Order: sequence, then C-alpha cells, then structure tokens
Amino acid sequence: MKKQDGNVIGVDFGTLSARAVVADISNGHILGVGTCEYPHGVITEGLPAGWALADPEDYLSSLIAAIREAFQTSHVSPESILGIGLDATASTFLPVDEACEPLSRREAFRDHPHARMKLWKHHGASREADALTAVAEERHEDFLARCGGKINAEWMVPKLLETFREDPEVFSAADAFIEIGDYLVFKLTGKRTLSDGYSGYKMLLRPGEPSISPAYLDAVEPGFSRILTKRKGMPAGIGTLAGFLTPEMAETLGLVPGVPVAAGNIDAHAAIPASGITSPGTMVVLLGTSCCSLTIHPAFHPVEGAFGIVRDGMLPGFYGYESGQNAGGDMLSWFVRNAVPAEYIREAECRGISIHDLLTEKASALRPGQSGLLVLDWFNGNRSVLANMDLTGLILGLTLKTRPEEIYRAMIEGLAFGLKAILEAHAKAGVEIRELAASGGISYKNPLFLQIYADVTGLPIRRLASPEGPALGSAICAAAASCAYPDLAAAARAMGGLETSAVLPQAGNHAGYEKLYSLWLRLHDAFGRGSLPVMAELISLSKE
Amino acid sequence: MKKQDGNVIGVDFGTLSARAVVADISNGHILGVGTCEYPHGVITEGLPAGWALADPEDYLSSLIAAIREAFQTSHVSPESILGIGLDATASTFLPVDEACEPLSRREAFRDHPHARMKLWKHHGASREADALTAVAEERHEDFLARCGGKINAEWMVPKLLETFREDPEVFSAADAFIEIGDYLVFKLTGKRTLSDGYSGYKMLLRPGEPSISPAYLDAVEPGFSRILTKRKGMPAGIGTLAGFLTPEMAETLGLVPGVPVAAGNIDAHAAIPASGITSPGTMVVLLGTSCCSLTIHPAFHPVEGAFGIVRDGMLPGFYGYESGQNAGGDMLSWFVRNAVPAEYIREAECRGISIHDLLTEKASALRPGQSGLLVLDWFNGNRSVLANMDLTGLILGLTLKTRPEEIYRAMIEGLAFGLKAILEAHAKAGVEIRELAASGGISYKNPLFLQIYADVTGLPIRRLASPEGPALGSAICAAAASCAYPDLAAAARAMGGLETSAVLPQAGNHAGYEKLYSLWLRLHDAFGRGSLPVMAELISLSKE
Repeated sequence: MKKQDGNVIGVDFGTLSARAVVADISNGHILGVGTCEYPHGVITEGLPAGWALADPEDYLSSLIAAIREAFQTSHVSPESILGIGLDATASTFLPVDEACEPLSRREAFRDHPHARMKLWKHHGASREADALTAVAEERHEDFLARCGGKINAEWMVPKLLETFREDPEVFSAADAFIEIGDYLVFKLTGKRTLSDGYSGYKMLLRPGEPSISPAYLDAVEPGFSRILTKRKGMPAGIGTLAGFLTPEMAETLGLVPGVPVAAGNIDAHAAIPASGITSPGTMVVLLGTSCCSLTIHPAFHPVEGAFGIVRDGMLPGFYGYESGQNAGGDMLSWFVRNAVPAEYIREAECRGISIHDLLTEKASALRPGQSGLLVLDWFNGNRSVLANMDLTGLILGLTLKTRPEEIYRAMIEGLAFGLKAILEAHAKAGVEIRELAASGGISYKNPLFLQIYADVTGLPIRRLASPEGPALGSAICAAAASCAYPDLAAAARAMGGLETSAVLPQAGNHAGYEKLYSLWLRLHDAFGRGSLPVMAELISLSKE
Repeated sequence: MKKQDGNVIGVDFGTLSARAVVADISNGHILGVGTCEYPHGVITEGLPAGWALADPEDYLSSLIAAIREAFQTSHVSPESILGIGLDATASTFLPVDEACEPLSRREAFRDHPHARMKLWKHHGASREADALTAVAEERHEDFLARCGGKINAEWMVPKLLETFREDPEVFSAADAFIEIGDYLVFKLTGKRTLSDGYSGYKMLLRPGEPSISPAYLDAVEPGFSRILTKRKGMPAGIGTLAGFLTPEMAETLGLVPGVPVAAGNIDAHAAIPASGITSPGTMVVLLGTSCCSLTIHPAFHPVEGAFGIVRDGMLPGFYGYESGQNAGGDMLSWFVRNAVPAEYIREAECRGISIHDLLTEKASALRPGQSGLLVLDWFNGNRSVLANMDLTGLILGLTLKTRPEEIYRAMIEGLAFGLKAILEAHAKAGVEIRELAASGGISYKNPLFLQIYADVTGLPIRRLASPEGPALGSAICAAAASCAYPDLAAAARAMGGLETSAVLPQAGNHAGYEKLYSLWLRLHDAFGRGSLPVMAELISLSKE
C-alpha cells in the first residue's frame, strides 16, 4: 500500500453528543478530537410515554463545533484535509420540505410532534411495527429473512406508518423523510443522497434484494405506499462520494471548499472499517449501554433473529450482518444504581475506585459457576436471537449467601451467553465466526468482561486498536470517498485494525462455561421459545 | 370456664437465646418477661462446613437467668407459681451418660465433636438423611406419608446415623441421646421423659402410628436399630405433667419446690396453644426468619410435603400438621443487607425509620402485579410442598426500570404464594383451611405482609393476641400440666387467643393475585417438579 499524505475528518453522532476526529490518512492515527453535546439532548417532556425526539439544529451546531475543535487541536492545515465522513444513530429522521428544510420550522407545524425529528429510540410505533410484521407474515414477504422475521419499532418504516396514521397533514406536507445522517451530508454538500446503510437496514429497501413493495405497504394501510415517493436523492454506497463541501460550509468550518464528503453511515456499522476487518470470520462486538454484533460474509444466509442483513450495507462486496442484545452496560449500571450495599460504596470511596471497578475486582476472584447463579440478560427485551421485546430479565440460583459481586459476574456471563447464542445462530445458518473484535467503552475499562467473553465463547478476542471506533470508521469512509485508496476495504486495512495481543480463552474456564451454557440455554429456550411463556403474560398483567 | 388464681411460667428456647414469661393462669396476661442470650451462641468454629453445635450449659444457665428475670419483673409471689413449661428448637440433642450428664464433659470425649450437642440446623447428616429416605422408599415404609416422603437432615434419626457411622465410640458410650427440651425438663424435675412432640416429629416414633422399626433401621445400616435402646424416660404428652420442681432447682430459681413441670414441646408448636385454636380450619403461620405453617385436624390425611403429621403432636386428640418455608424474614434481611441503594439508606436515616419500614412504605403504594416481577422464595431450599433442599431462589421480570421496593414486594408475594401452595396441598388431601392466624415478629411489625397474605390466599388473617407466642404457649402447657384446667385445649381457650380484628382479603387484589399465582405456579412446577431441573445441576457445578 502506497503511503498517502494528508488527513481526513470523521464525525460520530451518538444519542447525546457528536464526536469528531482528525485522522492521518496514511495510518489512521488520531491527530485531534472534538466533542459537543446536543443542547436539547433527548426530548421527552410533554410527550406521550415512549416518545423520544431530538432537534436537527442541535446536530448541525454540534457538527460544526466538534469539527472545529478536532481541527484546531490537530494543528494540521486546512489544505491537508482530504475528506469528511460521518455516521449517526438510525433510524433518526425528520420530514423536510422541497428545499430540504425541516418541516418543524414552519409556524403551521409548531404543534405537530410528528413534524419533529424522531430519535432511533422513539418507541411510539410499536403497534405499527407489529402490524407491519403481521401483514408481512401473511404475505410471506421474502424480506423477513433479512431482518430476523420481525419489523422493529425503531426502524423508519413503522415510524412513518405512525405519522401516516396519526398526522396526515404532516405526511402530505413532507417533501421527504430524511435520516439525520443524510440530512447532515446535505448540509455539508448541498446534495441530497440516500445512504445504502440507512435504506437497507432501516427502510428495508435494497436494489436486487428482497425489499418492501408498494403492494405490501398498501396491504398494511391503503395509500401507505406513498412513502416511497417521499425519498429524495441519489443512492450512495458506504465509503463512496456523496458530494463536495460547499463554500459556505467550508468557511464556517475553516476548511477548503470542495473537500469530498462521504455518504452517511449507521453509527455502530462504522466500527467495521475501524476494525480493519475486510474478510469473513470475525465478529465485531460493540460493548456499550446495549450490545451490537456485526460481521460480514460474501453470501446471504438467513441468520435467526438477525437485526438486519444487507448487501453492501457495511462494506461493499459483502453482506453486512447485524445482531444485537438490548441490554449491556446499562444492565450493570442498573445493578450499581439499585442493588449495591452501602458497605461496598464506602469501600470504593475509601479506595478511590469506581463501584464497577470494586465489583469487577471481587468478581474476578470467582470461578465460573461458583455462585450457582444464571442470568437471562433480557432487562430490556431480547433483540437477537429471539426478537421479542416482551421478554424480561431473570436471576436464578439466589441463596441467602449470594453476594453482590456474584450477581454482577453472573450478569456479565449472561451477556456472554447471549452472544454465544448469537454466534450459534450464525454458525447454524452457515456464517462461521473464529474470532471476536471488541469495541465500546466497556472493552477498554473492564478486562474481566473480555476474559469472560473469551472463556464463554471459546474464541480469542482482540480490541480495536483505536478507542475512537466509530469516528475513526467515518474518517476511513472519508478516505475511501476521497479516492486516496482504491476502495473502502483498502482504506480500512491501512487505517483501521485490531490490537496485536488477544485475550485467549482459558481451557478450564471454557469447559466450565460449556456446562453452564447448556443450563442457560434451557432457561433461554423455556422462557424464550414457548414452554414457559410467562414473561409476556406478566407484562400484560402489569399494564392492566 | 371457672377463673383460676395464680400464675405459670413458660420458657421458649430459640437458636440464640431463651425467653421466659410469667403469665396469669386465668387469662394468659403477661406479667413479667426475662431473656438471656446463650454465651456461646451457635458453635461452628473449627468444625466442618454445615456443622452447628451448641453448649447445653448455656441453655441451663439461660433457663435460670430468664426465669429469674421474668419472675422478678412480674412482682408475683413464689407461691403463686403453679406450673412451669418449656419449648425448645428440635432436633437439638446431646448424648448423656447413665446419670443424664452430658458425655462431652468427660475428658475422654473432649475431642469428639459427636459427643457435643448438635443444633437443629446442624447439616452434617445430609447424606445420612438421603440414605434413610432411599431405604424407606425401597421398603415402602408407611411412615413416609407422615413426613412428606422425605427424611430431613435436621431430624434426630439422620444425625444419630451420622454419629453411629463416624464415631462409634461416642455412640456406644452414650446411655441415651436426649433432646435439649427433655434434658432441661430433667434438670428441673430430676425425671427423664420423652416428649411426644420430639419423638413423633424428630424420631418418627409414635405408638399406634407408622413409625421407624428395628428392621428398617438395620436395613439402613446393620446395628443401627440400637438407637432404639438409647432413649430413656417415660413418654409424656404435650401439656401433661413431666414431674415436679426439685428442691435444689427451686432454690436456684427462687421458687417453691414441687411446682408441676410440663413435658417439653417443639418451639414452633407452642404457638398452637398460644393461638387458642382447638378445632380444625385455622392455620397458624409463624413469620420468622423462616416460616412455619401449623394446623390440627381430627383425622390423618397425607398432605404433600408436610414436614410432619403426628397424632397428639401439638394438641391431644388431633393430628398436628406442620409444613414450612425455609426462607422468610431472612430473605428480606438478605435483600436489605445486599441490594438496597445508598439513597434509600440515607432516606431511612433522615426520616428515622428502618430500611424495612421505608421499603414497606414504598411497596405499599404498588398494585398487585404492577412490577411484572415474580419471586420463587427458595433462597434456602424448599421445605413444603416440594421437600427439596437443592432448589434456589429466582427473580423473574427484571427490567432496567425495576425499583428496589418492587423486588421487596415481589419477595413478600413469593412467600405468600408459597403459603398458598401449602394451603392447596392441605385442601387436596382433605384438610380445609378457612382462616389464617399469624405469629412471629414480622406479623407485628409489617402490616403489608399480612395484607398481601390475605389478598393472595383469599383468607382472613388474625394475629395471635399476644406477641409472646411460643413462651405463652409453654405457660399454657404448664397450666394444663398443673391441672388448673381439665386439658390443654381448655387452658388454650382461656389463656391463648387471636386478636379480635382480622385483616380481610380485598376482592380486587385477590383477583389480581389469582392470575399472578397461576403464573407463579408454572414456575414452581417447572423448576420444582421436573421440566426445568436446572437448580440442582447448578449447585452441583458450583461445588465442582
């Protein structure tokens, strides 16, 4: 690979803030970082339960602030910036007018919540998602095989159905509904694009692959196929050119006009180029508040409970497979907030360490299975492999001698068992995984987590070399879009990558966990596959 | 009923302390109370795991101290004391010599732990209990129907088999093995008696009823039938005369020689006379660190998982039925010790209330089923109705929004569901219960507990009129033994009783709990009756 001169900018838009990096285009080294929290955060006040909105102005101002800070701290010249890329949560979208201005700015739509930007975690469209799934099942729609058999309420299609049903005025007035990632690319370039990532995973539209059709949409609700006319812009592949930086935006950012801007990407998926993985066999596991499992494979295999399987969706030339676990760090945070005794809090304070560190230290001294505990990690439902949001968490094996660190460890083990179930679903479908790659804050903070994951799965695990996973991934997309590399894979190999040393499974622990997993799987199947379907009934009783 | 003049003393020997009362023989009013903690408490140091011993000297000195304190605070005359009764944990027993002196006092047995007093909760004889059950099953022994189909390791027979196997020297040297209750009666009277309660429930010996036989014992281990020769003394019914206070002991206690002393009783069973219940249809529920359910019925019915069913075992003329739950207040204490967040502890401190009170207050505001949680209360195994010590606790329905008070309430509900399963086992066998009577500290401290019990079971619940349940029950046995009443039932009616007001089930709550119970029962049966037998496997893995 010939060395390149210059730098690229990558911006990652999370749920609460944006994070930008300036990276060396030749090797991915991070030269500058900038962050900006959204002034209005997640907007839920005065809205029905389950609603979650955000303000597109926040994202635009954060884009500018984060890039300026990253650029300034990098001390590189404006002329050295060869490309800009970005990723954002999805489906986070807004209705816009013909000029691609947010509909919510119009006085007439001031009191129309559907005119505002719905955040990925907006859960107002659960019934719509169920209706979409039911009709798809009736019609034996092929696309179900590439989304785990269920339409998720967080995707764009059910949220659009919600608007279609509840606010026809907004629906009609909208020239288009646009993902925030595509919207920000428009703001940078003046060009309207439709990223393959957003379209494939969140709208179930992918040319040449099973997709939603007008007939299906009208079967769900007559006239709903009109949503297909409310998508404006050129399709744009991951790591390809979306347009060039406008003179106005260049001035605002202090950059040179005409810099190539890459197509938008889904935030989690940006970890794939950041990992440098360009061939099948490795699964990237994002350990965040929730957990996401990503891999690529040249062929389509219907993996049970996959959140999405999209051709070219993560890396051109491959199907991008996404699975997930709805709980992760947030389950451990729940435990620390709710169920840690005062003496532990005092001990952590005295020693000047976090409660997580204290529990990790105590939990590290335990053998696999020693506590006699098993945890089903369904504290926020189950995304993969069961795709059932009505499932709830379970702790089994409690005795009067059970200690907090035993529960803490059993929770981490429960997450690892959940990942093993995902790995087995992949293997069963024909997607073999031989290695894990870890990203996300927990993987850098908690070594026990990685060891348990390795011991449970029996696979070696390496972390992404850079903790700036998604932002670096977007910078790599920028490098590919700038044509500094022949394609995204080449850019990923040069700029992304994993740490050289791996956490290896310990044979004794792995054997112990194999026995525990077989017991865990019995619980998983009993509660998740039908013989003991008490969780959904409990939830419906709790709502009576 | 003719009014009697005079007073009686009752002493209750618990696990950690003795408690004596002086009660008015005409109405059971408590005139004085005395308590004494055992100096050596529960002895476990330097002993194998599961072992629990105690010192009979502690019990004797506490007997004296507690009675003296109760007598002094009562300000009654020595001449007014018409009887003494006592109850104690069982099977808590010691080997003695021909003079009924503890074998452990002899220099030769200094280093023989089997020569010491084994506490009821000594768990060194689990394997022996299993062997006894297995042989009884093979031989289709009739007595199994009156002990829930299983020999419990806490009873006298398995603990004797443990001594027989592990220390033949102690076994041979012992003139007798004697329950601490019978031993203390001997100390008061100089007479050796064998209380029907201890013999029936803890030795499975009851004349005219299915009992252990020499052939059975020798089938378990050749020669083991010799234990039948190591029982010395006259059988003595509950509430009957065992002997008279010796001059020496009278002087020590500051009482008059020749005071009638009643036969010993099992501590929990003393709640029956204290409740004043002398006819079938009421179940006395003791809400302590663990829970015990007692009732009487004129006929024998094989109740599933009953801990013991003994003719005349609690009240002459009736079969005494005992069932139990191994966890109770100790499960809630575990929760408060291990799983309550610092903010709750601060709030309780600021408001000057206990953490239990704070959790109860918060839990009271919840509707049945609102939390979506179910708890299996098996934190210390399951005594009734499953009789399986390998079962462990379970919390199901956890989410990221679950609050501590929701778990606390679900634990109380889990205990109530466990009681409902016991009530259903009784009803199925032909023992109908129409009312509950509550005793034990929790029932006086926590009104939510009683309301949940009433709502879950659909039965009215009244507390024992006196919180001095067991000690008052022993005083009532003393009154009967003194012949102040024609029989124990008459004494119980005059001196014991329930509060006049009942906690009644609320119809709406009961209906809600019926649905929750049906779900709880599915968990109970899945984990307890075979379709998901993962708990025992987890325990065996934890010991590997």
